[in-house]
Amino acid sequence: MATKHILIVPGDGIGQEVTAVGKKVLDKIAARFGHTFTYDEALVGHAAIEATGNPLPDETLTKMRASDAILFGAVGHPKYDNDPSAKVRPEQGLLKMRKELGLYANLRPIKLFDELLDASSIKPEILKGADILFFRELTGDIYFGDKGRKNNGDTAFDIAEYSRFEVERIARKAFEAARTRRKKLCSVDKANVIETSRLWREVIQKIAPEYPDVEVEHQFVDATAMLLIKDPRRFDVVVTANLFGDILTDEASQIAGSMGMLASASVGDGTGVYEPIHGSAHDITGKGVANPLASILSAALLLDISFGMKAESDAVINAVDQVLKAGFRTRDIANAQTPSDMIKGTDAIGEEVLKRI
Amino acid sequence: MATKHILIVPGDGIGQEVTAVGKKVLDKIAARFGHTFTYDEALVGHAAIEATGNPLPDETLTKMRASDAILFGAVGHPKYDNDPSAKVRPEQGLLKMRKELGLYANLRPIKLFDELLDASSIKPEILKGADILFFRELTGDIYFGDKGRKNNGDTAFDIAEYSRFEVERIARKAFEAARTRRKKLCSVDKANVIETSRLWREVIQKIAPEYPDVEVEHQFVDATAMLLIKDPRRFDVVVTANLFGDILTDEASQIAGSMGMLASASVGDGTGVYEPIHGSAHDITGKGVANPLASILSAALLLDISFGMKAESDAVINAVDQVLKAGFRTRDIANAQTPSDMIKGTDAIGEEVLKRI
Ligand SMILES: CC(C)[C@H](C(=O)O)[C@@H](O)C(=O)O
Ligand SMILES: CC(C)[C@H](C(=O)O)[C@@H](O)C(=O)O
Repeated sequence: MATKHILIVPGDGIGQEVTAVGKKVLDKIAARFGHTFTYDEALVGHAAIEATGNPLPDETLTKMRASDAILFGAVGHPKYDNDPSAKVRPEQGLLKMRKELGLYANLRPIKLFDELLDASSIKPEILKGADILFFRELTGDIYFGDKGRKNNGDTAFDIAEYSRFEVERIARKAFEAARTRRKKLCSVDKANVIETSRLWREVIQKIAPEYPDVEVEHQFVDATAMLLIKDPRRFDVVVTANLFGDILTDEASQIAGSMGMLASASVGDGTGVYEPIHGSAHDITGKGVANPLASILSAALLLDISFGMKAESDAVINAVDQVLKAGFRTRDIANAQTPSDMIKGTDAIGEEVLKRI
Repeated sequence: MATKHILIVPGDGIGQEVTAVGKKVLDKIAARFGHTFTYDEALVGHAAIEATGNPLPDETLTKMRASDAILFGAVGHPKYDNDPSAKVRPEQGLLKMRKELGLYANLRPIKLFDELLDASSIKPEILKGADILFFRELTGDIYFGDKGRKNNGDTAFDIAEYSRFEVERIARKAFEAARTRRKKLCSVDKANVIETSRLWREVIQKIAPEYPDVEVEHQFVDATAMLLIKDPRRFDVVVTANLFGDILTDEASQIAGSMGMLASASVGDGTGVYEPIHGSAHDITGKGVANPLASILSAALLLDISFGMKAESDAVINAVDQVLKAGFRTRDIANAQTPSDMIKGTDAIGEEVLKRI
């Protein structure tokens, strides 16, 4: 029986709707397992810009540092996407949070619930049994290097940077995770062209002998983008840089049938942040149709990783599994065979999960 | 009846085997349509390093400039991939060629031959009718900016750069191609994080009004990596930067069933280069099993784009189609239902194509 303080950071768009359901799941777990979870809430992204002018207000950062774990929604707003010259952007809040909290390791487990085998564009016989754990580096690369304009604004530049230290700490996390799984690590880079990738590969090669039980392979990012679809089962743990990880994990969401199912954990030096990999999805915001299962599964990751509550985490995952087995779907994971009365909205499918915890 | 001089640049690995077949197809076309094609051959990549120490010898560059079109194989060697500190690399030959010849536009048509609907990991009902034309920028981005080490080699950096001029010239090619097709252009960037992407989006927005008949959308690269698999038919022409194009077109090869089917054209200021998108594939080199259809289809692109020989190009594509309809396959595009006597090696399937021209 533990006492924990959880910060809820809904952010923008459907972030609001899905974290509300994620929080209810945490509440139910506290009740069932006799824990005390206290909550606070804070602003980030467009919501924070509207309220304070700052995508990551100091107050939010202070609350983040003071909490035991953070359940995060999503950030972004179409208004900024179509204005390349905007100086203040919702995404800056997300990136600054990652940097300030030292969240250098983004874990993205890609695992298909058997019941969703048919929700994917990929053939079931290619998918069955696929189970990949991505480690995306989250505080370096072209995301955080200098960027700007030259020649009166006519030339733009971005600097990608990695230090040995930054590569080594994420690589060690990935090696250690591989040890607890199928003992295969695929490191993804573009070492035939990019210098940061050559440093990346050097570091992996250097520390690999310390993990003799883990089989290491190096793949180029272009080949990996192809292999993930061609043969997803060949991957166990994948470790890669920030930008490549951004692209490959979104692609890999198709292995799991839908982005709406995928949770992620950002961990490192500070308080862990747990969030769906889907974005703010303004096109469906406020309609009550967003899939909250990724936020619920993010809560499960939070329980497991930040609180060491494995049984509690499994209870959540199991409840999601039961809901899918019972035939309930949100719109994004339904197909032509789904009876229309089994297609549920955000809150209704959340209730089905709560009942089964 | 035209006289043309074609340079054959096989490069490394299976590049040798497949361009030999591509050349035979060009010969057959010359004979059938009464053209005179003369040939020369030149070294690039690992083959050139072995012979001269230089991945793109001056002699090769001189021959390239003197030819009307170039049929290219592939470059690369595992020896360098696993040596991050190698100073001379086969890929430098390829990159320098692109830069020296001013080949800023890489066209990669992704179209599924109906007979290969089953060769893909993606469900036939998702694929049927997919037809995408990628324009990948080829002489800028992180490929060509400054790169190096700092802090005694402990920090690596790469600079990505784009000028308005560079974005505009590739964008115009893409807009013009969209006009001749389904009139949709998707521009892919990461404008929510990267400055070069913000410039990219600015330029597209600025010139879009000149093409009022083309419907433009902007997508982030991570979302695009997902959408290509989820719903490939939503794309018509896609235009993107060098690195994103590298990743997305390899991924998109799965829409066409296999990398072994995909051709590309690199065009711009100088002699056009036509090459498969597959690499040197040293694991199957010399075994006579490489799929030469991508090289054959590269020859078809060469005839069409560099020589304006549309009928000749169609004759090649049609012959490939007939070969597939007749049930012939190479190993990479065969499946469990393919009778083993219909699985052909490199030369044998090449002969089947030649017979049908
Ligand atoms: C919103 C954006 C800045 C972010 C990223 O690129 O990291 C998102 O795509 C993600 O993957 O968390
Ligand atoms: C070999 C490599 C340098 C090259 C690239 O990244 O451009 C290849 O992947 C390609 O797509 O032509």
